[in-house]
Amino acid sequence: MFKLYDISSVIRPQMQVWKDLEHNRPVFETVRSHDSGETHETRISLDAHTGTHLDAPLHMLPGGEKIEAIPLGDLIGPARVLDLTGAEDGITRQDLEPFAIQPGEWILLKTKNSYTDEWRDDFIYVKQDGAEYLAGLGIKGVGVDGLGIERSQEGYPTHRTLMRSGVLILEGLRLKEVSGGSYFFVLAPLKLEGIEAAPARAFLMGS
Amino acid sequence: MFKLYDISSVIRPQMQVWKDLEHNRPVFETVRSHDSGETHETRISLDAHTGTHLDAPLHMLPGGEKIEAIPLGDLIGPARVLDLTGAEDGITRQDLEPFAIQPGEWILLKTKNSYTDEWRDDFIYVKQDGAEYLAGLGIKGVGVDGLGIERSQEGYPTHRTLMRSGVLILEGLRLKEVSGGSYFFVLAPLKLEGIEAAPARAFLMGS
Ligand SMILES: [Zn+2]
Ligand SMILES: [Zn+2]
Repeated sequence: MFKLYDISSVIRPQMQVWKDLEHNRPVFETVRSHDSGETHETRISLDAHTGTHLDAPLHMLPGGEKIEAIPLGDLIGPARVLDLTGAEDGITRQDLEPFAIQPGEWILLKTKNSYTDEWRDDFIYVKQDGAEYLAGLGIKGVGVDGLGIERSQEGYPTHRTLMRSGVLILEGLRLKEVSGGSYFFVLAPLKLEGIEAAPARAFLMGS
Repeated sequence: MFKLYDISSVIRPQMQVWKDLEHNRPVFETVRSHDSGETHETRISLDAHTGTHLDAPLHMLPGGEKIEAIPLGDLIGPARVLDLTGAEDGITRQDLEPFAIQPGEWILLKTKNSYTDEWRDDFIYVKQDGAEYLAGLGIKGVGVDGLGIERSQEGYPTHRTLMRSGVLILEGLRLKEVSGGSYFFVLAPLKLEGIEAAPARAFLMGS
């Protein structure tokens, strides 16, 4: 049997949210309960970019494609977890080159971020030159364990470079329990239509 | 290569919702757009029971387990699609017996419901005696293509019988494009915590 690694963030009101802002928090409203009726039912309110989520090009490119344009088949297949826990500040081309990244892979970047559930301003991101390198390799997508793939870069060059090259962007992974290496990867975003991102469940199968 | 069958409902404001009630509809609010800023961002509001979703026991049993108690490993494995498109009204023990259901399987019930995106009061459900039969077979779970697994049964005996026997309940599948038979099944609910259900992406792999 295969071993299963759930690499998704738990979605709950107290989770890490973008810039720690209250209006970015998920809200769970109990609309019916066993005290007052026969069932328990909850209404959920959350940002499309909550926890583990897949960005569509519309998020950063005017007129870009929406989430339903991404085929499910592109989200299932070989992935490699790169151990970049030694990286400080941001990930560069130089950090990535030693891994001999192959076309068709999903690349998941394990950083020091995996070790916290709190928002932190200094999360490890992918620098513009790292994104330019990744954009030329023919990979399917890049996943990060920070809530964003970039920060502090005017004009969002990391997002835009990857999106213009058709490289998918997955943010908010939890990679703490997973070692660097090769896996079979499943990324299952909610089947939303008409918007720029979707919260997702993601897991790895290994031996 | 395997063939992939996405069996999830599309989530959008105009989708089928429970009893066609406005307050059950998902709402997508654009909180930022390229007209006014540098990114496009959406806030989503939806019922936990929207589209394809997994019920936890708390939904129908006071003090029942919440969604996070269901292990991901129980949601991945062999499944069988049973063609019950001939069934009228509700599915009974007699409808199910010919399929020689095996322990450990997920059982997905394909009905006439798969053919509509509109709410209909007469959706095909699993009758109490069908649920009692399924509860004794040692299966992992039952999936239906109606938005509910039951209707018109006082005290929800179908839900409660299955839940008390540890049989998982998955509702709102889309099975129109899938033939009866055996598949590898992946059910990926959002990793929500503290509530009674989770919207999910579900797919089958076959040859
Ligand atoms: Zn995002
Ligand atoms: Zn439900």
